[in-house]
Amino acid sequence: MIAILKHGVTQEQTNHLVAWLKRMNLDVHISQGEEVTVLGLIGDTSRVDMELLSSLEIVDSVKRVSEPFKQANRKFHPEDTVIRVGDAVFGGGSFAMIAGPCSVESEEQIIEVATAVKEAGAQVLRGGAFKPRTSPYAFQGLKDEGIRLLLEAKKATGLPIVTEIMTITALDLFDEVDIIQVGARNMQNFDLLKELGKTHKPILLKRGLANTLQELLMSAEYIMSEGNEQVILCERGIRTFETYTRNTLDLSAVPVLHELTHLPVVVDPSHATGKARLVPSMAAAAAAAGADGIMVEVHNNPSRALCDGAQSITPAQFAKLSAQLTAIRGVLQ
Amino acid sequence: MIAILKHGVTQEQTNHLVAWLKRMNLDVHISQGEEVTVLGLIGDTSRVDMELLSSLEIVDSVKRVSEPFKQANRKFHPEDTVIRVGDAVFGGGSFAMIAGPCSVESEEQIIEVATAVKEAGAQVLRGGAFKPRTSPYAFQGLKDEGIRLLLEAKKATGLPIVTEIMTITALDLFDEVDIIQVGARNMQNFDLLKELGKTHKPILLKRGLANTLQELLMSAEYIMSEGNEQVILCERGIRTFETYTRNTLDLSAVPVLHELTHLPVVVDPSHATGKARLVPSMAAAAAAAGADGIMVEVHNNPSRALCDGAQSITPAQFAKLSAQLTAIRGVLQ
Amino acid sequence: MIAILKHGVTQEQTNHLVAWLKRMNLDVHISQGEEVTVLGLIGDTSRVDMELLSSLEIVDSVKRVSEPFKQANRKFHPEDTVIRVGDAVFGGGSFAMIAGPCSVESEEQIIEVATAVKEAGAQVLRGGAFKPRTSPYAFQGLKDEGIRLLLEAKKATGLPIVTEIMTITALDLFDEVDIIQVGARNMQNFDLLKELGKTHKPILLKRGLANTLQELLMSAEYIMSEGNEQVILCERGIRTFETYTRNTLDLSAVPVLHELTHLPVVVDPSHATGKARLVPSMAAAAAAAGADGIMVEVHNNPSRALCDGAQSITPAQFAKLSAQLTAIRGVLQ
Amino acid sequence: MIAILKHGVTQEQTNHLVAWLKRMNLDVHISQGEEVTVLGLIGDTSRVDMELLSSLEIVDSVKRVSEPFKQANRKFHPEDTVIRVGDAVFGGGSFAMIAGPCSVESEEQIIEVATAVKEAGAQVLRGGAFKPRTSPYAFQGLKDEGIRLLLEAKKATGLPIVTEIMTITALDLFDEVDIIQVGARNMQNFDLLKELGKTHKPILLKRGLANTLQELLMSAEYIMSEGNEQVILCERGIRTFETYTRNTLDLSAVPVLHELTHLPVVVDPSHATGKARLVPSMAAAAAAAGADGIMVEVHNNPSRALCDGAQSITPAQFAKLSAQLTAIRGVLQ
Repeated sequence: MIAILKHGVTQEQTNHLVAWLKRMNLDVHISQGEEVTVLGLIGDTSRVDMELLSSLEIVDSVKRVSEPFKQANRKFHPEDTVIRVGDAVFGGGSFAMIAGPCSVESEEQIIEVATAVKEAGAQVLRGGAFKPRTSPYAFQGLKDEGIRLLLEAKKATGLPIVTEIMTITALDLFDEVDIIQVGARNMQNFDLLKELGKTHKPILLKRGLANTLQELLMSAEYIMSEGNEQVILCERGIRTFETYTRNTLDLSAVPVLHELTHLPVVVDPSHATGKARLVPSMAAAAAAAGADGIMVEVHNNPSRALCDGAQSITPAQFAKLSAQLTAIRGVLQ
Repeated sequence: MIAILKHGVTQEQTNHLVAWLKRMNLDVHISQGEEVTVLGLIGDTSRVDMELLSSLEIVDSVKRVSEPFKQANRKFHPEDTVIRVGDAVFGGGSFAMIAGPCSVESEEQIIEVATAVKEAGAQVLRGGAFKPRTSPYAFQGLKDEGIRLLLEAKKATGLPIVTEIMTITALDLFDEVDIIQVGARNMQNFDLLKELGKTHKPILLKRGLANTLQELLMSAEYIMSEGNEQVILCERGIRTFETYTRNTLDLSAVPVLHELTHLPVVVDPSHATGKARLVPSMAAAAAAAGADGIMVEVHNNPSRALCDGAQSITPAQFAKLSAQLTAIRGVLQ
Repeated sequence: MIAILKHGVTQEQTNHLVAWLKRMNLDVHISQGEEVTVLGLIGDTSRVDMELLSSLEIVDSVKRVSEPFKQANRKFHPEDTVIRVGDAVFGGGSFAMIAGPCSVESEEQIIEVATAVKEAGAQVLRGGAFKPRTSPYAFQGLKDEGIRLLLEAKKATGLPIVTEIMTITALDLFDEVDIIQVGARNMQNFDLLKELGKTHKPILLKRGLANTLQELLMSAEYIMSEGNEQVILCERGIRTFETYTRNTLDLSAVPVLHELTHLPVVVDPSHATGKARLVPSMAAAAAAAGADGIMVEVHNNPSRALCDGAQSITPAQFAKLSAQLTAIRGVLQ
Repeated sequence: MIAILKHGVTQEQTNHLVAWLKRMNLDVHISQGEEVTVLGLIGDTSRVDMELLSSLEIVDSVKRVSEPFKQANRKFHPEDTVIRVGDAVFGGGSFAMIAGPCSVESEEQIIEVATAVKEAGAQVLRGGAFKPRTSPYAFQGLKDEGIRLLLEAKKATGLPIVTEIMTITALDLFDEVDIIQVGARNMQNFDLLKELGKTHKPILLKRGLANTLQELLMSAEYIMSEGNEQVILCERGIRTFETYTRNTLDLSAVPVLHELTHLPVVVDPSHATGKARLVPSMAAAAAAAGADGIMVEVHNNPSRALCDGAQSITPAQFAKLSAQLTAIRGVLQ
């Protein structure tokens, strides 16, 4: 870590700062230029509060030379982390497909969709039981009953399941869930992350609407620092000024995250765009960008499609997409 | 609520949609124009999932005529909600000042700052015990010990205290805390909001970094819908492309929120700007914009100022600011 | 166009508004609901100032049923516009590749790069002669000499050229330029757009850093409304809070624009990401998203690479990328 | 300027970079730390392309120690620049008020508004003659006739006038205009800025919708570097995700700009919020934040208010606001 001091800082102020840094068990290398004084901090700088340091009156700016995430850092773990769940393989050059309805609605619905997406090539079933909703008056999901139905679908099809957790106190209900999802709104719910770090389940961690990639990695680090190294990162769109799509899918996140971390990266084009007709092209783009998988919403019943979000595609569309993604992945080899 | 259907929608599709809406206990008024069909939905539309409705293939767009928040809505509660905590009055034309250090560090520190800010005119003491930190390796606050120290300061000075809660499971520790703060990162931690709605304490709800004002009000609604009507809203800056300030303080939030809701609105210029030297002018601007109060970080010990964030001002600066704010509020009468 | 009036609007106010609208040669269809009054405006609403109308005190909101762009609108021109420049075909299912250095530096450089990119499959040569620079003290390009050198490279290789115009007064210099580029900063330089609309040359119009897709189409409309229908749209990243990449490439712009307009859409991954190592994956993603082409920066001389932006890839990388893009396009057929 | 090199850079690469920097007439001070190599660049670094330098493969990051703007920089010109136009004084502790209609519509209208705002305390008359409009089909202003009418109003009231220029080729029409405005969309129309730098008139430079404060200052520098030092900066809202207000007024820009530059800073609350009822509180906030003036839209004729933007306030509201602003400025002394 490097701290650039402001022009005109006195020797006494510099000494004061250096003493404070040394009390944090850091070695400090002072480079006095003509224009500027640069402090090189050597040691375990991950504990240094960069924001605090850079806000000091005598400090012009602070620059991390090493990233603040360790366990998620590819530098210290060059090989891809590979997470296997049933037949799905996340990372290491594989491509995994997660599909299913936005919300679990009934046993019939979830089993029908599960059967259809399995046939079309999906290796994991998704479905919302606990639904984060902006309004307290909106339907909040079938909750524990929803999880029970997902488990029925798992039994019927053999597909492992992923569903979202919203609070630590519901953790017991996730015993047989294969992958626990942390939604965008909870990406910085640090207490939840720490508890999930104590489990032995893969965690699908979605990027928050206004969070940088570094913040996403720091949230992964919260999970990993408690002992759980199975984190799947998920890009699902960020909030921008553009209103035509629900959010703006940031596909450059895929190669950037692959550079910075060994963790697998999947893309959710359904929530990012909010429009079914944009899902296939954005899923194809995600595959071409090098994603380790996608997560898409698929609904089953065209005659009831009215009640499904138009962000869901049909099983037939998914089957076609699935083949296309495989072909694109083939091109990239 | 109004739903505008797409050009070329068939009669059958329209009937299908209308039937579905009626099943939600809504009356539907159909207006068939030349260019377009407009459905007027009458009844309790707060339960209608606007995003879902607008994503249907046959729907061009959906427009709420009435806001989705009810209890927070000024239309149904024209008078200001007034929240009294000790000598502080939030709402109804008063101006309340919350001040204190970023983090509670020691008994000596917190009592010294509390004494100083009380003398300078603050009516509430703030201080972080549980600190949300981007990094799992950073100092996370003194936790329960921090709350104990805040209570010591309360005893010593008589000032009521406000401090942040990060997880439901810590709620017991907040028994003697006067105002419970929900931080920006937890603004949409809906389970936490619901639990706080069951308490009888004032809740200081901070706007999320990338949340709209309507989303802020919907989060207030989560608290209020559980029975707790004492919600103080707090504007603390949003995330934009500008990097000179930590966030961009959105002061137009103040008059807009006053229009939409009867709840009091305070402004936190310290976290918004991240720079102490910008705090006084932004606090003055907040007062001029009509805010019901401010929350500012104040540190006590110039000789140790090194370790305090440069976003904190000194007690002397706070005393001067306090007088200026009172004068500005006088001008606005 | 639909105008939704506010609850409680009087008959007199409504009449007043209707009269005003009729003076604009619009027919007005009034639908008086219980909750709300909706005005359907029929006729040439493209001249109605939507922002003005929606800002009227009695108007709740305004909704265009038809888009404000006409000539760029796919509804009125369902077939793709196909623009041919030399061997490049933009639109209609083709895929065109524009490549070349950020800035033209010397005759040797531009001819060398032109030769290399042509061999690797590029059909158009790019190169900056007039460079928009944030600082007045930075190198502003070789200007007219840069255009002369581009024309030399065109003569040597047969590749048509594209280069940026920054002011109307330089138009004479672009006589032999094949495609005139309008940069992101000038996307709403309406006087420049109108002048370019009077030329008969294809215009490559880049999306502004903070402009919506609709605004991009309205800028295309400025050019088209003056008679020039050859507009190539270019997505090149938007400004967001993320700082790891220079801008955030919005690839969903590709399918959205294809829906809304018949104009071809190309993607510039070099400027969007600002990092050469991200260019290949983002170019592949653009092709998979259905773009009609890409524009990439390629530099020639590894030994002088120092002075080229790291957003430029080498001719060898470009050749490899070119083959990959062709394969991806094959998959999408 | 400081360049931090990447870990693992070879001596040869470093030498290569240093040689390149020295060819730009810079002295380079090399500090080889254990972790990292830091280059201190000494000399006229304003000509160094920071983006280019930081994009080099061997460079981790680049940090300016001195700002890239010189003539606008308060460091080299500690005293406020004071710009006098008629009775208006911009800078040096004064507070100037610019008021008038959005567009000039007729001689009667502009003279009536001019008379009213003068009486209410405005020192400068604003009015749009050339209107930048998103749509080519929307009313583009009365153009040269609009300027003629403004000059009539100037003659009738003695108020100096400010109006927007959109293209260099119209410059002749601005001979008798007192302050030339550059709109947000043209903030980086560098050719226009350079031409305006050759005039001797005060320039009111509006911040672009997605431009940082540093970019605003670099655009001022474009004007100043050509010899015109009379630049008035104008904050008018930036584009964010919030949709309730048209833009988000960034009032922290006021104290930040005062820190960085000696140029006066005014605030336009009318365009920022797009809603008349928010204008008074935001104008008051701007005054409290320390702005050197405001620019507000005022319309004259309540009976024709229909056609005026709801972002305009009435002369009576302006008169009341004017008194309030004076009082707030008194408090700040």
